[in-house]
Amino acid sequence: MPQVHLADDRLTRGPWIYSRRIDSADQEVHPGALVEVIDASGRFVGHALANPYSDVGLRFINRGRRNALAHPERFLYDRLKRAADLRRRTLRLEEVTDAYRVCHGEGDLLPGLVVDRLGPWLVCEHHALGFWNLRAEVETALKRLYPGARIAHRVPGSARRAEGFVDLGMEEGLDPETEETIVTEYGLRHPVQPGFGHKTGFFCDQRDNRQRVARLAPGRTVLDLCCNTGGFALHSALAGARSVTAVDLDETVLERAQRAARLNDLDVEFHHLDAFDYLRGALEAAQTWQVVVLDPPKLAAGRRDADGAMHKYSDLNTLAMGAVADGGLLATFSCSGAVDLPTFLGMVFQAGRRADRRLRLLEVVGAGPDHPQEPDFARSRYLKGALLAVD
Amino acid sequence: MPQVHLADDRLTRGPWIYSRRIDSADQEVHPGALVEVIDASGRFVGHALANPYSDVGLRFINRGRRNALAHPERFLYDRLKRAADLRRRTLRLEEVTDAYRVCHGEGDLLPGLVVDRLGPWLVCEHHALGFWNLRAEVETALKRLYPGARIAHRVPGSARRAEGFVDLGMEEGLDPETEETIVTEYGLRHPVQPGFGHKTGFFCDQRDNRQRVARLAPGRTVLDLCCNTGGFALHSALAGARSVTAVDLDETVLERAQRAARLNDLDVEFHHLDAFDYLRGALEAAQTWQVVVLDPPKLAAGRRDADGAMHKYSDLNTLAMGAVADGGLLATFSCSGAVDLPTFLGMVFQAGRRADRRLRLLEVVGAGPDHPQEPDFARSRYLKGALLAVD
Repeated sequence: MPQVHLADDRLTRGPWIYSRRIDSADQEVHPGALVEVIDASGRFVGHALANPYSDVGLRFINRGRRNALAHPERFLYDRLKRAADLRRRTLRLEEVTDAYRVCHGEGDLLPGLVVDRLGPWLVCEHHALGFWNLRAEVETALKRLYPGARIAHRVPGSARRAEGFVDLGMEEGLDPETEETIVTEYGLRHPVQPGFGHKTGFFCDQRDNRQRVARLAPGRTVLDLCCNTGGFALHSALAGARSVTAVDLDETVLERAQRAARLNDLDVEFHHLDAFDYLRGALEAAQTWQVVVLDPPKLAAGRRDADGAMHKYSDLNTLAMGAVADGGLLATFSCSGAVDLPTFLGMVFQAGRRADRRLRLLEVVGAGPDHPQEPDFARSRYLKGALLAVD
Repeated sequence: MPQVHLADDRLTRGPWIYSRRIDSADQEVHPGALVEVIDASGRFVGHALANPYSDVGLRFINRGRRNALAHPERFLYDRLKRAADLRRRTLRLEEVTDAYRVCHGEGDLLPGLVVDRLGPWLVCEHHALGFWNLRAEVETALKRLYPGARIAHRVPGSARRAEGFVDLGMEEGLDPETEETIVTEYGLRHPVQPGFGHKTGFFCDQRDNRQRVARLAPGRTVLDLCCNTGGFALHSALAGARSVTAVDLDETVLERAQRAARLNDLDVEFHHLDAFDYLRGALEAAQTWQVVVLDPPKLAAGRRDADGAMHKYSDLNTLAMGAVADGGLLATFSCSGAVDLPTFLGMVFQAGRRADRRLRLLEVVGAGPDHPQEPDFARSRYLKGALLAVD
């Protein structure tokens, strides 16, 4: 197995090592190779997937035990089994859904590898060239764990650039070949196209938050802003909301949400509009809802965009608060990893002052437990949300 | 209405103003008086409960509107109605329990006043001398909101000292006079003595977390450390745990937990022991559980104790992780307001390294939504918890 040498001994605990910290002589290692990592004192550190094309030069899949990778296939199977066991045995997610995250990259100690189960499909999302190279081994392991599953691979655009897929002339075959299928979540049926649209085709991470909102929906008027495939809206309708309005600018996801409404025989009023425009119209018409959900797409792609994104988040939250009836509820989210929880809450509270509304923070929430977080990798806490009473 | 003048114009947003920032000439205001607050430029700021005996010289109950307190009784009723409406109308808590927090002090814009409903009782916990002085008005408002309720008042020891009750010769009548009653939470019946024991007699704040643990308990072995009146243990048993063990050093709460087990016909093995001692015994016997709950009492009373408390938390968590079966779950909590969330999580992750266990953080949790947080009063986020998969 090739070796990569670190330029210094200051070892951080996280799963990543940036390329600038790697000895330049080792920059010629094959992109995506599985390597042994050796520190500046010559000590073995662990095994990693190396990629000199990427800012993230090394992604540790093992630390400490030198014989852990003696059988890479067995190692990969064991790690994926731990991941699947957590969802199926410990959390028993299959009692409520067939759409969940099987493997959450760093959070499952497989940095860069995301696997979602969507009905009969397992969609592998590759954020690391190294796992793309190992996709045959990943498939073998997944087929043992999920006999009969159909497997698709996807490389998101961000990874294509960051991991050098494009520079390496690997633009072909990075898109999955799948067929539309139906997944079920707490009794609600959703049509999904595995591997297409945002993420792997379905936002599993909001499952528990959809239930939280649905429990508060019976008998109430609900507005779902940036509704995507309609999860919050549809679960609210299923729970017995008095009326449900859902808004999104993206025609493809909205069409899917509309089909889901028909499939489940639910009554939702859909609007093909930008959330800002819809809210300004509601404000002019003095229209309010008892429960408002605001789950915008990622507005901050990285730390550099964070400032501009915070202005958008703040404007959107201010407008959304204006649409909450007196004594009503707002469930507001941000999935930007670059925006941390205190920054997010500060923005929400500021929006309360701008909207001249009195806020009581009822709950702070995150992604569901099938999106575990590695202790030393805070950036995996990307999804944050707040449930607020708005007076 | 008497006036209190601020020594400077640097107004913070929170509900408290410390005594050192108040003009000394005004220090003679009657302790616990309702006052108008005037800033150094002579402008009206708001209404507050003043107490020159306390470090917290002013607790704002209103800011900005000068005529808001024209009818103090109506004002108090409106505030308490907002608080009760949130629990009964918006959150519909009475569908699942008759034990909940009606008013959460600063979080409900009534700084220093806590009211818990425990079956037929409303227990008022006074953290401010000002609300103690207004207890007749508070009773009038509560009786309108909860006709037929029995009302008790309690001044916790910390407030007796901090608010000067003792120095003012008011030691008599600060303890409530109540009778034991039964409260119900998600179908489980608990005997409680309103106004006695920890808090107002029952920990409403862990309601949702008890449900989280109970959902993971069926068919599993569960250990509830520092079980208090047995909430986690009893709900786990009710949900169908394979076996439940509960440990506490406090005989009074343990006796109540045992009675609750009998009352609900549930099988729980109780141990009257310190959690440290119990865990050392389990370690020696190599005994493990699939689900371990660790909810210790407040170990850090204030920021000065925080360092010592962190050592205790760390030791306790390290030992508790040793008692989790491979692939099992740990639900660990801290109710010390002086320990913030990053510090708490850092301690938990460090304990994982000390215990040589691999952790996946599944969920970060807090107090239930009947414990709302005032945006500008971070210290109200006292209860933090983490659900972890332990490999």
